[in-house]
Amino acid sequence: MKELFYPKHVAVVGVSKNPSKVGHVIFANMVKMGFSGHVYPVNPKYKEVLGHKCYPSVEDVPKVDVVVIAVPAGFVPDIIRQAGKKGCKYAIVISGGFGEAGNEELTERLMKAVKESRIRMLGPNCIGIMNTKNRFDTVFFPLHKMIRPSYGRVSIISQSGGLGTSIIDKSAYLGIGIGKFISYGNAYDIDETDILSYLGKDEETDVIVMYIESVKNGKKFAETLKEVNRKKPIIALKAGKEGKAKEAAKTHTGSLAGDYLSFKAAFKTAGILEANSLSDLFDYLTIFNQPLPKGKNLGIITNGGGLGVMSADEAIRQHLNIVDLSKEDKELLEEFLPEYVTPSNPLDLVADADVERYKKALDVFMNSKDIDMLLVNVLFQAPSISEELLNPIVRAAMDKRKPIAVVVPGGKWAEAFSSILSMNGVPTYDAPERAIRALRKLYDYSKVVRQRE
Amino acid sequence: MKELFYPKHVAVVGVSKNPSKVGHVIFANMVKMGFSGHVYPVNPKYKEVLGHKCYPSVEDVPKVDVVVIAVPAGFVPDIIRQAGKKGCKYAIVISGGFGEAGNEELTERLMKAVKESRIRMLGPNCIGIMNTKNRFDTVFFPLHKMIRPSYGRVSIISQSGGLGTSIIDKSAYLGIGIGKFISYGNAYDIDETDILSYLGKDEETDVIVMYIESVKNGKKFAETLKEVNRKKPIIALKAGKEGKAKEAAKTHTGSLAGDYLSFKAAFKTAGILEANSLSDLFDYLTIFNQPLPKGKNLGIITNGGGLGVMSADEAIRQHLNIVDLSKEDKELLEEFLPEYVTPSNPLDLVADADVERYKKALDVFMNSKDIDMLLVNVLFQAPSISEELLNPIVRAAMDKRKPIAVVVPGGKWAEAFSSILSMNGVPTYDAPERAIRALRKLYDYSKVVRQRE
Repeated sequence: MKELFYPKHVAVVGVSKNPSKVGHVIFANMVKMGFSGHVYPVNPKYKEVLGHKCYPSVEDVPKVDVVVIAVPAGFVPDIIRQAGKKGCKYAIVISGGFGEAGNEELTERLMKAVKESRIRMLGPNCIGIMNTKNRFDTVFFPLHKMIRPSYGRVSIISQSGGLGTSIIDKSAYLGIGIGKFISYGNAYDIDETDILSYLGKDEETDVIVMYIESVKNGKKFAETLKEVNRKKPIIALKAGKEGKAKEAAKTHTGSLAGDYLSFKAAFKTAGILEANSLSDLFDYLTIFNQPLPKGKNLGIITNGGGLGVMSADEAIRQHLNIVDLSKEDKELLEEFLPEYVTPSNPLDLVADADVERYKKALDVFMNSKDIDMLLVNVLFQAPSISEELLNPIVRAAMDKRKPIAVVVPGGKWAEAFSSILSMNGVPTYDAPERAIRALRKLYDYSKVVRQRE
Repeated sequence: MKELFYPKHVAVVGVSKNPSKVGHVIFANMVKMGFSGHVYPVNPKYKEVLGHKCYPSVEDVPKVDVVVIAVPAGFVPDIIRQAGKKGCKYAIVISGGFGEAGNEELTERLMKAVKESRIRMLGPNCIGIMNTKNRFDTVFFPLHKMIRPSYGRVSIISQSGGLGTSIIDKSAYLGIGIGKFISYGNAYDIDETDILSYLGKDEETDVIVMYIESVKNGKKFAETLKEVNRKKPIIALKAGKEGKAKEAAKTHTGSLAGDYLSFKAAFKTAGILEANSLSDLFDYLTIFNQPLPKGKNLGIITNGGGLGVMSADEAIRQHLNIVDLSKEDKELLEEFLPEYVTPSNPLDLVADADVERYKKALDVFMNSKDIDMLLVNVLFQAPSISEELLNPIVRAAMDKRKPIAVVVPGGKWAEAFSSILSMNGVPTYDAPERAIRALRKLYDYSKVVRQRE
């Protein structure tokens, strides 16, 4: 399936001159971003689009590895056949209006064309592919509306195009690098299991994020989940769990959302990291650039007592250990802590803590044999805290000896610092409970890995 | 207690020339913001601070209604006595180092001074008060680090200073107007019940947010909660729920966090809107500028199918009704919807929806007799969506006929629109499940109000 992600010659069929039309946006995006292969616009109405020669049909294009189709549904089967004649191997069908709209006859015609042309099809009714490495990108959201993420080692599989793109969009915002994105829509040919299996073997992918409503073949899917998750973590969000939501899923991608209980069972068996919401998904994803913890002993540092209390509450709910500090560690802390600060865990450095106090406390917790993971709360609004605190935190997180999550609550000022931290690869959250839940997932995955060994 | 919030003469004791010291920040903030009364710096070391005459002791100040004390703990009792002699009625003691640090003897001396001086004391070990109306503000976070929220009708009570300030800081960021903020710390004199009761009667306060770890008198507190919540909604976050978190709460504000089960029971009896996390608290707070719903029939609109499915999932989990559309409403929708859009609830306007399609759909749902509340999902990244969609959404929310929540997922582009919506008072969320949970809380409170009537 490598050629689907690394085509040399791409034809985009249905490129209008109207910049708000899907085909135009796809073509324009690839031109602007500098797709590393050749991209050809196809539309019988025009001789050129954006200064590029426009071809009347896909058969007139010099060469085609992948055809991207964004025309009304009725025309799609014929275009597939034409592409087949050109030796094209993959079709990405953006167009909707097949089974999900009740058009079964058209769906049959489409499938017949796909089969007879020996083409593998992604879609229909999908957003297709984004590969940040070669900038092959069929996401029809304009670049100014959706800034593309930088290259990274997280890949995303999404049954829903819109939801998938809001995941990549937010990833770019949070500074999370993305490798490949695949929106597969109705999955009439290439399905979730094919893609999952490919990403499992993909050497450019370390972490997989998956949004799913339904699957074609539950058994094969469950087996693949298990096999892939042993090699790299899968963070999965299952939607269309019940009742009206299932119905909504049916009109969405044309397939009935599976029984949630069987999904839940499959996730559990495979040790999949299930996210229950979009927020959870990002919270979990954010932590996965950190090393896996050796155990579940948590250290908590704060300059706001309430944040410490809330951190401890959630840690207890998540069954992490708020370990007591050893005599040695307490002595190390007493060397520099003022008298009114108690050397304990959670460690409340109190409101007048300065950068030096934080830095030394971080050192003690990072070096402590008893602490497996670290939560650092910072009220950057405190008068005694300056931007110099960023350095020791980034260094501790880059150190990769134990996982660190940082909580920076507040408004604009807090956001400035939290975004610098995220951009430097430090998992950063706006509230302690989110960070703690993420650390718990990292610990869960460390158990999957230990089982494997 | 009105004079505590509206003093005419305030003395700040312990104003250093060092801009990173608490006393300095408090004085400088009030000068810069233009506190509507008189504020006098007190410190025997200086003749002037920031161009203002500095007084050697509180007894030398022309007049004092409220004394704000930010000096080492040992000096506090004497300053209270001096203020008492000047006829001062309230003391706000910022300084920590009393019971929470194990200094019981000093605490006794403090309480004796308070009693004998007939002064009412807020604190010690607190951040004090912020009143956005007259800009009386003892929050010792510099203005550039913590932008103050605009005046509004939400007031905040917080046992934790740091956590409380991160609530006001984020409120400013989200465009939520705040009236009064009170951080009460160790609550040796004025306690949570006194403040709650005052805000219950306060004509400037419509919604109360409360962060709490422990209470002094559980029975009185529970009664006051019930009484106040009948008049205006209370959104409460209880921390220090168990084990180590309780211990952390003890070193924080010096009192043992109460049994969570009794809190839970009190909250339930009073119909309090309990938030389980900082994120939940904001999600709930955001919705409370909307009218209360007449029932729990929810309408969902989206241009991304996955968002519709996720919205429906959460609505089902929250026991809201995703009501079927009436024949009349369906006909109204069919008048303008393209053939490939199904007129149902959730209503997926699909990826090519433009502003006009949204606007007309909004009208149908706003006018529908069967829909009590409305969730609008928008992928602003879609090529056919423009900023003109902001107008009909803001108008629908200002209409106040039924509550609306808007979901705008994504990155920078999405954030621009969501922040314009929030600043215009439209409750806006980054994920459907957050919006749905907030709508559920609004419905819960509508039941409290109906019971009252």
